[in-house]
Amino acid sequence: SMDDDVPLILTLDDSGSGASAPPDEPDREELPNENGGSYDVVHDASSPAARECCAQQSSARHNWEMNYQEAAIYLQEGENNDKFFTHPKNAKALAAYLFAHNHLFYLMELSTALLLLLLSLCEAPAVPMLRLGIFVHATLELFALIVVVFELSMKMRWLGFHTFIRHKRTMVKTCVLLVQFIEAIVVLVRQTSHVRITRALRCIFLVDCRYCGAVRRNLRQIFQSLPPFIDILLLLLFFMVIFAILGFYLFSPNHSDPYFNTLENSLVNLFVLLTTSNFPDVMMPSYARNPWSCVFFIVYLSIELYFIMNLLLAVVFDTFNDIEKRKFKSLLLHKRTAIQHAYRLLVTKQRPSGISFKHFEGLLRFYKPRMCARERYLTFKALNQSNTPLVSLKDFYNFYEVVGLKWKAKRNREHWFDDLPRTAFLIFKGINILVKSRVFQYTMYTVVAVNGIWILVETFMLQGGNFFSRNVPWSYIVFLTIYGVELLLKTTGLGPVEYLSSGWNLFDFSVTLFAFLGLVALAFNMEPFYFIVVLRPLQLLRLFKLKKRYRNVLDTMFELFPRMASLGLTLLIFYYCFAIVGMEFFAGVVYPNCCNTSTVADSYRWVNHTVGNKTIVEEGYYYLNNFDNILNSFVTLFELTVVNDWYIIMEGVTSQTTHWSRLYFMIFYIVTMVVMTIIVAFILDAFVFRMNYTRKNQDSEEDNGIVLEKEISKEEVIGIIELYKRTSAATETAQLQKMVLQMDKYGQMSAVFLGRRSRTKSDLSMKMYEEEIQEWYEEHSRKEESQTPLQEPAPASSSSLKPLSLRQRSQTVI
Amino acid sequence: SMDDDVPLILTLDDSGSGASAPPDEPDREELPNENGGSYDVVHDASSPAARECCAQQSSARHNWEMNYQEAAIYLQEGENNDKFFTHPKNAKALAAYLFAHNHLFYLMELSTALLLLLLSLCEAPAVPMLRLGIFVHATLELFALIVVVFELSMKMRWLGFHTFIRHKRTMVKTCVLLVQFIEAIVVLVRQTSHVRITRALRCIFLVDCRYCGAVRRNLRQIFQSLPPFIDILLLLLFFMVIFAILGFYLFSPNHSDPYFNTLENSLVNLFVLLTTSNFPDVMMPSYARNPWSCVFFIVYLSIELYFIMNLLLAVVFDTFNDIEKRKFKSLLLHKRTAIQHAYRLLVTKQRPSGISFKHFEGLLRFYKPRMCARERYLTFKALNQSNTPLVSLKDFYNFYEVVGLKWKAKRNREHWFDDLPRTAFLIFKGINILVKSRVFQYTMYTVVAVNGIWILVETFMLQGGNFFSRNVPWSYIVFLTIYGVELLLKTTGLGPVEYLSSGWNLFDFSVTLFAFLGLVALAFNMEPFYFIVVLRPLQLLRLFKLKKRYRNVLDTMFELFPRMASLGLTLLIFYYCFAIVGMEFFAGVVYPNCCNTSTVADSYRWVNHTVGNKTIVEEGYYYLNNFDNILNSFVTLFELTVVNDWYIIMEGVTSQTTHWSRLYFMIFYIVTMVVMTIIVAFILDAFVFRMNYTRKNQDSEEDNGIVLEKEISKEEVIGIIELYKRTSAATETAQLQKMVLQMDKYGQMSAVFLGRRSRTKSDLSMKMYEEEIQEWYEEHSRKEESQTPLQEPAPASSSSLKPLSLRQRSQTVI
Repeated sequence: SMDDDVPLILTLDDSGSGASAPPDEPDREELPNENGGSYDVVHDASSPAARECCAQQSSARHNWEMNYQEAAIYLQEGENNDKFFTHPKNAKALAAYLFAHNHLFYLMELSTALLLLLLSLCEAPAVPMLRLGIFVHATLELFALIVVVFELSMKMRWLGFHTFIRHKRTMVKTCVLLVQFIEAIVVLVRQTSHVRITRALRCIFLVDCRYCGAVRRNLRQIFQSLPPFIDILLLLLFFMVIFAILGFYLFSPNHSDPYFNTLENSLVNLFVLLTTSNFPDVMMPSYARNPWSCVFFIVYLSIELYFIMNLLLAVVFDTFNDIEKRKFKSLLLHKRTAIQHAYRLLVTKQRPSGISFKHFEGLLRFYKPRMCARERYLTFKALNQSNTPLVSLKDFYNFYEVVGLKWKAKRNREHWFDDLPRTAFLIFKGINILVKSRVFQYTMYTVVAVNGIWILVETFMLQGGNFFSRNVPWSYIVFLTIYGVELLLKTTGLGPVEYLSSGWNLFDFSVTLFAFLGLVALAFNMEPFYFIVVLRPLQLLRLFKLKKRYRNVLDTMFELFPRMASLGLTLLIFYYCFAIVGMEFFAGVVYPNCCNTSTVADSYRWVNHTVGNKTIVEEGYYYLNNFDNILNSFVTLFELTVVNDWYIIMEGVTSQTTHWSRLYFMIFYIVTMVVMTIIVAFILDAFVFRMNYTRKNQDSEEDNGIVLEKEISKEEVIGIIELYKRTSAATETAQLQKMVLQMDKYGQMSAVFLGRRSRTKSDLSMKMYEEEIQEWYEEHSRKEESQTPLQEPAPASSSSLKPLSLRQRSQTVI
Repeated sequence: SMDDDVPLILTLDDSGSGASAPPDEPDREELPNENGGSYDVVHDASSPAARECCAQQSSARHNWEMNYQEAAIYLQEGENNDKFFTHPKNAKALAAYLFAHNHLFYLMELSTALLLLLLSLCEAPAVPMLRLGIFVHATLELFALIVVVFELSMKMRWLGFHTFIRHKRTMVKTCVLLVQFIEAIVVLVRQTSHVRITRALRCIFLVDCRYCGAVRRNLRQIFQSLPPFIDILLLLLFFMVIFAILGFYLFSPNHSDPYFNTLENSLVNLFVLLTTSNFPDVMMPSYARNPWSCVFFIVYLSIELYFIMNLLLAVVFDTFNDIEKRKFKSLLLHKRTAIQHAYRLLVTKQRPSGISFKHFEGLLRFYKPRMCARERYLTFKALNQSNTPLVSLKDFYNFYEVVGLKWKAKRNREHWFDDLPRTAFLIFKGINILVKSRVFQYTMYTVVAVNGIWILVETFMLQGGNFFSRNVPWSYIVFLTIYGVELLLKTTGLGPVEYLSSGWNLFDFSVTLFAFLGLVALAFNMEPFYFIVVLRPLQLLRLFKLKKRYRNVLDTMFELFPRMASLGLTLLIFYYCFAIVGMEFFAGVVYPNCCNTSTVADSYRWVNHTVGNKTIVEEGYYYLNNFDNILNSFVTLFELTVVNDWYIIMEGVTSQTTHWSRLYFMIFYIVTMVVMTIIVAFILDAFVFRMNYTRKNQDSEEDNGIVLEKEISKEEVIGIIELYKRTSAATETAQLQKMVLQMDKYGQMSAVFLGRRSRTKSDLSMKMYEEEIQEWYEEHSRKEESQTPLQEPAPASSSSLKPLSLRQRSQTVI
């Protein structure tokens, strides 16, 4: 029978009886995997586990539930690259783990972190509109911090004290929390804000969020790329010092040259020159005196900017490449180990050579609660490559690739209108053929191109003035009508579902929708929405579908997007730190006409003088680039990132504070240089990888995503329904029963389903490193074997898990 | 006997008889290579070739000389990547070929081209000091052009008319020559210079020089990278247009914003913004009005600068990578074919399975005339891997790798002082041990570091003023003494030859020498030499020997240097073209206070006004960035390359001319962007390649260059002397006889020689692509075989060479 099977390994099982088992008691039973599952070989009747097993046969169901849960946890850990030494060790830890691992908790984490970060909008140098009283924002902060304390205590409960203090990131977070707590109380007591640079550390709360895993990975990658980066940076700085000394000796006798009159100026100006930001200016006084002095600057720029800076990129790119591969390897092996752990918890004593559907279904109930019964069975079938009722370990290794598939019934009918009456069918079929024809497509491209030229000419014609008049231009209406008709034809010809399943069509749709909204806005003369009108040229992007390279580039762009977003977020985190520091030191130091004694006075000058009867306003707008509140700081920091004319901002601030302020700007430049170089290296790597992949797989060119096809017969469905009925999960069978009814209706004996998911970088890597991966696996299992000499499965009980996890850790944490 | 051997193939042989054979007459005899050399198998007594062979046995010597010469030409063509369809086809062509292929002719070519280029220093908008009368420079030009005519006529003689007009580069050159000729005459007649933009085409004379092969390769690579580059550029421009329209609609209602008031301004300013050159300024007016307008600029820069520009680099890098590999492959196969051609000319009818030393020596006499007899024999031995007296084709394939080796007798004694008396030996041995010790090295590093800090502190202390005083600072003397002592110790301890054979020591030596010269200059107070003093900090570069990564980086730098230089030269050629065009259009348009109506007036303002009794000079130096002569133009173009503030130069010129001038500047920006991207891609590629190579060959780490060891016995030497005596080349044997005498003196039976050369990129590539190379070879020989079905060597006679060459060409010209 199917009900009296016993798990090979029992997991933390006695939470139901109220008393948690001591973690070092051998409360699980283990069976060697290789001995063909003969039940009586291993049992040592004197062991408490064996006695327990024989006695508590009735609690098997409960044991299985626990095993499913732990297996699901293992698989989640594998997926998220969580180390196994943080695996919950007993029932109490498990409860805390479950509490701390769901989206509600994650959301709380995230919103607390965001709240803390957003507080800086309202604190001391606040954005004027969002200013809050000290009492209010300090209370808010205390509240958020208390939530963090709660989160951390849950984590401690789950990890246990020892693991907790060994986990570096958590410890840093705790320390920061402590400091923030004290400071918040101090602020509340004193009712005034002091210099709180430590606010810059608030980022750690965001970085530690579950949802910010990508940011953590980026940060790790940045830190790993640092050593070679610093080496080349030193080379750069070395040449800078040499040239500074040289420049000082050469140009300081020229008293009209303000750039080299002291060694410090010489150094600072050469640093700025490295960013080219002061380029012709810094050369001009000496060039005016002696034309040959340009040689100094040309040589400096050639060595520093064109050679060493590129070398920097090359070194980072090389390191990046290497790290990406190693990361992929360690992740792959980590997942494999997780699968092994889960597998061991799911096989039965009776049949240790594979997982039956019943247990697989149990696992999925915990791993993907929202999956329906049909999808679970399809996933099982997709995994099961042999035709036995069990999934072997070898098949189970594909778990992560298969579990992400979205299953849909393969439609027998080709078009959505196949069931309609004859006349309607013919009409729609005609539209379908029209819409799919090349002529139609190229006509549309022509229309788009004409539209583009039209917009250009139209815009060129109206030079300034009030062009947002009440009367809507007729060309706009014409083109919009054409697009509308196209949209309609396509939707009816292809069916709405198929139409919107293509990314490009979705893009067309939304742009047309926006244009229509723009028309409405224009018709009703709603000023605030006029910007929608100017989105019209985006239609032109459709032209880029025409060429293969663009499709490639844009596809790569979309694939890169999540990673780019996380890199952007990483940059924002750095921005936040620098913004806080900048606000603490430089808030309010620059204002109109502030810097009249400095060399950049012109850029800060704001004069309002009258010549004749005309008022002339001379505006040097640079006083707007300040650190007066966090939003302004972000804009200022972006300007510093773009690097051009950043020295004006630096010199403005420096002239109002001390010359040590330059350090802040220089350090910021170097930090952004690191991040930007990583971003460039990342784009380079991703693109070159993609191109190599395309070159390697030129035959299977136009496949979008991974597709799997599986057939289910009626008997199978009925079998599953039976199974579910026995396990009293009757609610789940409704969909299945509907399936049976439908099959009966159409007289089919089986139904075919398609599983689909988009291709990830990991899939590409799998294909690219195909051969090496086999080597890695072999090497990995050799290591495993050498550490478990009797070829037994590595013990997974709570007591013996720890040494295994530690070993695992040294392989996966690189 | 060795004298009556007959070449397997006869080459253009009847130049002695005065009448050149018609090219389609079969005037060579051929023997299949594979038939074991049996003399009588092939001979068809009725063929004129066979009759000639039997009759003219006496002219064998002469035939051989011709064969040597042609083989040497083939090998040269292989080395220089000259296509075989330019191979001389008859005796007249050969004479012209030989005339046009020696360093004297090359130098003439080069100096003519340089003269033509340098003429622009003296023509119309001339450098003031170098101005020449129109009559003088036009005559000079005519003279140079006549020399070019002569060169071209030689080339025509060598190539023949048909090949000549089929050779694209030569045809372009001819056309340019014609135009230049007419224009020069017009100038001479009218006695005044007209607008001569065609002068920009003079570069072609330089590009076509034999010595500028690297430049030609770079240009080809740039043109090959263009198609993908242009694709992405279009994407870039497309977004620019969209944003320009958007910006115009958004910001033109703001009348204080001069950047977006017309669509043209909007476009131009977004183009400049792409280079970040006007960044915060272009944003400021709208930002002052509405802080949220910064979003427009941030999005624009993120898409264009941080995404698409990096994509551009990625695409070029990817293309570059691909091209480099294909280039390497085609070059390798071209060399292989050249070797096959040469081999066929060197084997005898009697022994077609290999080349004897006699014939190899004959080849080298033409291929490397300056090689001495000993080196020739060593090269032969190095090639000959089997111990037979013949070099087989398989061995001969290594010709290019071996022929570059420099041979030196392996010294038996370890140190140069081994032969000295006991006391002296001990002293020098002591010094040797000291110099090689780690303690000594690190002491020197410490001294250098201290010196560096000293210089820094010293420079920091003297803030401005007359620091080039007559009294030499004592610290300078102290450090120089230490370096002098170190140099002395190292030279005596290692021996001057060994000391100077290391690049790093050479560097130390020259820096110390310079420092000493600086001291002398300082002592005698010679102002013009004071810059030598400031080279002192270069000593600090020695510190970079300490770390492996730096050694790697610097070694890569030295390896890259020739290629970098050629890339620089390529850039200069583009500069030249643009400088000429710029001079023709913009010479004299900018001057102090020229642009008072433009937005960049400040940068060109030069005011000299008196406040109280102080004269204040306000200098906006930008009028110095002009196109008034070619040197100024070069500096201006470099400033445009660096990109910062380039729009000031553009707007200045534009305000004085028409707004079409902007096209010149924008095109220049795009061209330099291409070249710069190629340079970055090149550095990236070279560095990543090098790193991969190092990773692949971690075991054989510290080998500098390629080293081969060969032993020659006394008998062999005597044998060679005999051979030379018979061939009446007695002058060559002097060195060999000295060798024999020396062997006798020391009682040695043999001498060991070391052949050495530095490792080239080609060697690295050979190792990296090891496996693929075998595939290429197989594919190549399969193609060859399929085209010469009887497995005979491809015919090399003048008549049948043409089709082969054409075939060859399609494989090598990619």
